[in-house]
Amino acid sequence: MPEKTLAELAEHVGGKVHGEANIVIKSASTLRQAGPDDISFLSNSKYINHLQATKAGAVVVDKEIETSTPLLIADDPYYAFRQIVVLLHGQREHKKAGISAKASIAKTAVLGGDCHIDDFVTVSENAKIGDRCILYPGVFIGRDTQIGDDCILYPNVVVYDKCKVGNRVIIQANATIGEDGFGFATHEGEHHKIPHIGTAIIEDDVEIGACCGIERGTLDETIIGRGSKLGDLVAIGHGTKVGPCSLLVAQVGIAGSTTLGHHCVIGGQVGIVGHINIGNMVKIGAQSGVKNDVPDGKVIFGSPAVDASKAKRAYSLIETLPEMRRSIRRIEKRLEKLENDD
Amino acid sequence: MPEKTLAELAEHVGGKVHGEANIVIKSASTLRQAGPDDISFLSNSKYINHLQATKAGAVVVDKEIETSTPLLIADDPYYAFRQIVVLLHGQREHKKAGISAKASIAKTAVLGGDCHIDDFVTVSENAKIGDRCILYPGVFIGRDTQIGDDCILYPNVVVYDKCKVGNRVIIQANATIGEDGFGFATHEGEHHKIPHIGTAIIEDDVEIGACCGIERGTLDETIIGRGSKLGDLVAIGHGTKVGPCSLLVAQVGIAGSTTLGHHCVIGGQVGIVGHINIGNMVKIGAQSGVKNDVPDGKVIFGSPAVDASKAKRAYSLIETLPEMRRSIRRIEKRLEKLENDD
Amino acid sequence: MPEKTLAELAEHVGGKVHGEANIVIKSASTLRQAGPDDISFLSNSKYINHLQATKAGAVVVDKEIETSTPLLIADDPYYAFRQIVVLLHGQREHKKAGISAKASIAKTAVLGGDCHIDDFVTVSENAKIGDRCILYPGVFIGRDTQIGDDCILYPNVVVYDKCKVGNRVIIQANATIGEDGFGFATHEGEHHKIPHIGTAIIEDDVEIGACCGIERGTLDETIIGRGSKLGDLVAIGHGTKVGPCSLLVAQVGIAGSTTLGHHCVIGGQVGIVGHINIGNMVKIGAQSGVKNDVPDGKVIFGSPAVDASKAKRAYSLIETLPEMRRSIRRIEKRLEKLENDD
Repeated sequence: MPEKTLAELAEHVGGKVHGEANIVIKSASTLRQAGPDDISFLSNSKYINHLQATKAGAVVVDKEIETSTPLLIADDPYYAFRQIVVLLHGQREHKKAGISAKASIAKTAVLGGDCHIDDFVTVSENAKIGDRCILYPGVFIGRDTQIGDDCILYPNVVVYDKCKVGNRVIIQANATIGEDGFGFATHEGEHHKIPHIGTAIIEDDVEIGACCGIERGTLDETIIGRGSKLGDLVAIGHGTKVGPCSLLVAQVGIAGSTTLGHHCVIGGQVGIVGHINIGNMVKIGAQSGVKNDVPDGKVIFGSPAVDASKAKRAYSLIETLPEMRRSIRRIEKRLEKLENDD
Repeated sequence: MPEKTLAELAEHVGGKVHGEANIVIKSASTLRQAGPDDISFLSNSKYINHLQATKAGAVVVDKEIETSTPLLIADDPYYAFRQIVVLLHGQREHKKAGISAKASIAKTAVLGGDCHIDDFVTVSENAKIGDRCILYPGVFIGRDTQIGDDCILYPNVVVYDKCKVGNRVIIQANATIGEDGFGFATHEGEHHKIPHIGTAIIEDDVEIGACCGIERGTLDETIIGRGSKLGDLVAIGHGTKVGPCSLLVAQVGIAGSTTLGHHCVIGGQVGIVGHINIGNMVKIGAQSGVKNDVPDGKVIFGSPAVDASKAKRAYSLIETLPEMRRSIRRIEKRLEKLENDD
Repeated sequence: MPEKTLAELAEHVGGKVHGEANIVIKSASTLRQAGPDDISFLSNSKYINHLQATKAGAVVVDKEIETSTPLLIADDPYYAFRQIVVLLHGQREHKKAGISAKASIAKTAVLGGDCHIDDFVTVSENAKIGDRCILYPGVFIGRDTQIGDDCILYPNVVVYDKCKVGNRVIIQANATIGEDGFGFATHEGEHHKIPHIGTAIIEDDVEIGACCGIERGTLDETIIGRGSKLGDLVAIGHGTKVGPCSLLVAQVGIAGSTTLGHHCVIGGQVGIVGHINIGNMVKIGAQSGVKNDVPDGKVIFGSPAVDASKAKRAYSLIETLPEMRRSIRRIEKRLEKLENDD
């Protein structure tokens, strides 16, 4: 691992040093666990006491702070810190498996250059894998599916047939892409499966968490737009479109045929019904339930979800319902008394 | 793929044509994406403007509508459309893998006729697989487990030992059937695992979504009844019985030893506690929390779930709690004034 | 399977017999399904009518009850029953696979004595597996990961690189341990992946359910503490610490950098935000949403979660909001009348 002086790190991220610029930094750590060779960061002034107590060699911050610890001041300290972690540690290195003899590659499959296809991987008929892809053991790529360049599919990821995965896509272990959606025509009490002739498209630079399920469209496409990131155990319904650069935290569920704009942030365990439109840059608080269209830029919260400026207060008042009810009863008695007195 | 005239399609589904009956239909699509060779459908009059704008060759509807697009009128348009999709496209075709030499089949396992067992599949001791089953790569079938005829198990599905899966069952990728339930006897602060000597039974015509977890019973059976369909990431607790022909949307969780009747519809992310009885034909709205028995035919919603006729209005009023509280305070002041005036 | 007299079972668990002590018990069952060779248990007096109707040979109870069925009276009947199930049935027996020739074991991996590593298992470079571990087909163990003694990893479990799993850990099928967390630095509208240089530690005697996702820490450790048990489809965020002997029911989600104490009980589908502290022996009701620190011993419920003693009543009053609103309107009119009368 490379060592850098604080001055070099500051130059790397376009920041400036406050304090000793020549100290040597070897790795990155949390404020609490960092030692003198480590750099850490403070992104939230709520943890400023952790800064005062840290043994870190240096800390990335967004403005000068009174402290004896050398500081690296950057406009966007979390991004600067991320750049430093990449510089010092790099992303995960993968086994150079080549094309394992224990993988099962269909004759009609096309593999790009410098791919690493590990043991027990299945690449089905007419599937196409781009250059420099890493397929971990147990990955399944269905018939006619296309995977772009520089993708990483962790163990036991399943991508069904006829799906498209873009470039630089990362899919964490045990996630499923392109399975049939929950589509049944109920007739005389029986639920008849609708063939899912649609597909699933995962655009460039998407990351998908462990154990996610991204259904294919019934007739059209399910789309996870460019640069969007999904946490673990997220469920996306058939035909739903998630706009570019949106963030969906763990356990979010979106039913089918819903559209979500770009740069949305959807909190953990949020549920969104099918056939609605969520605009761009919408923020939805954790555990919310969304049943109606949401315009651009809106921040909502609650189940049912309402404007966040109201929601926090409103939901916190549920606790006071017994007291409110008693107040109403008391008021009614006092009223009655007044009315009778009249 | 077969081509059909609209007249032929109408005959196939027992509907009638309004408009040009001789047009040739090659495939099925959505109203928005359809072209002149495609048939589409309108199941909800809310989307009637999509019908007016469609370029589809024909549209399946439930009654005559003023439009220049040829119509196929059917009593149950979604079911008719489904029949047409099956006719034109068929269900997914699977690789004719035969019994792969790269599968691991125990000597004591029994395989039915015309099965396709793909690479990296494990079929354990004394397991029995019926006729015409398709086991995708990475599927695991435990010891003494029985799988019926015509089942499709997608990649990396795990069925534990001693389970029973009926006929025509479909299990989407990365789902788990028959794992040990969440059963521990807590004694002096330690949680002691209870052996799960029960099993899991998946009856005929069930479909189970990706990444579901269906626990086996502790002592008795977990049952997913005939014709029921489970969406993705559904969790079913040990010993729970889901009645025939029920629909459980994605991310539903049902704790152990609960009974659910037939033809229930359970919305996404609903949670149901253990040891209760949910009747037949019960409908539960998305994200509801159910803690008590529910009688047949009831429609409920909310967390806690209440009668749906009340729930929609009641939950929508949470938003008004700050205003209600202010009203009560104002009322109290006015009352006080009146009382003092007296 | 061993047969025991009721007297022998009572001795085994330190209980006493009420009724015929010489009857022979062969297996364990539920009150409803038990026959004369079976022992069952009554842990909740709510089901006492099942006791009266049972055909069980004997029943474990916590006190003498008027019944003709022989009883085994124990202080902690569920634990006693568990001891009996273990005695009569044992835990699951696993295939003695040895080290399968169809597994893929890196040359630098170290395997303990008497391990059973089944087909299609991957053990990566420098991984270390303790003694007597059972790795089912499709399990993946990442580079530099350590697994302790006597662990059972069910099919398709994935443990990423550099993780530590203790002794006697059980991981159910399709669960994922140590995947990258949901960590991105957003800069000029793009979400940049932060290398996850932390790890995940699963301590001794933990059990993890099917399809769980336990993220590794970004910089530090995610820890599932000794003796804790996680149900199916639980999502644990990066850097979160779950204290010893806690119980997390199915579909719980805990965001990153949160700390949970020992002996907590977290109900199904609960969501807990990141960066908070949940004390020891905290109980959180199903579907609750927790946004703030929770002190030791607290029992909370609801979304937002409040003291359980208040919550049950408060949330049940949501249903009455339309009526409360009408009451307030009526009161306002009566007030107005009184004021005008004055």
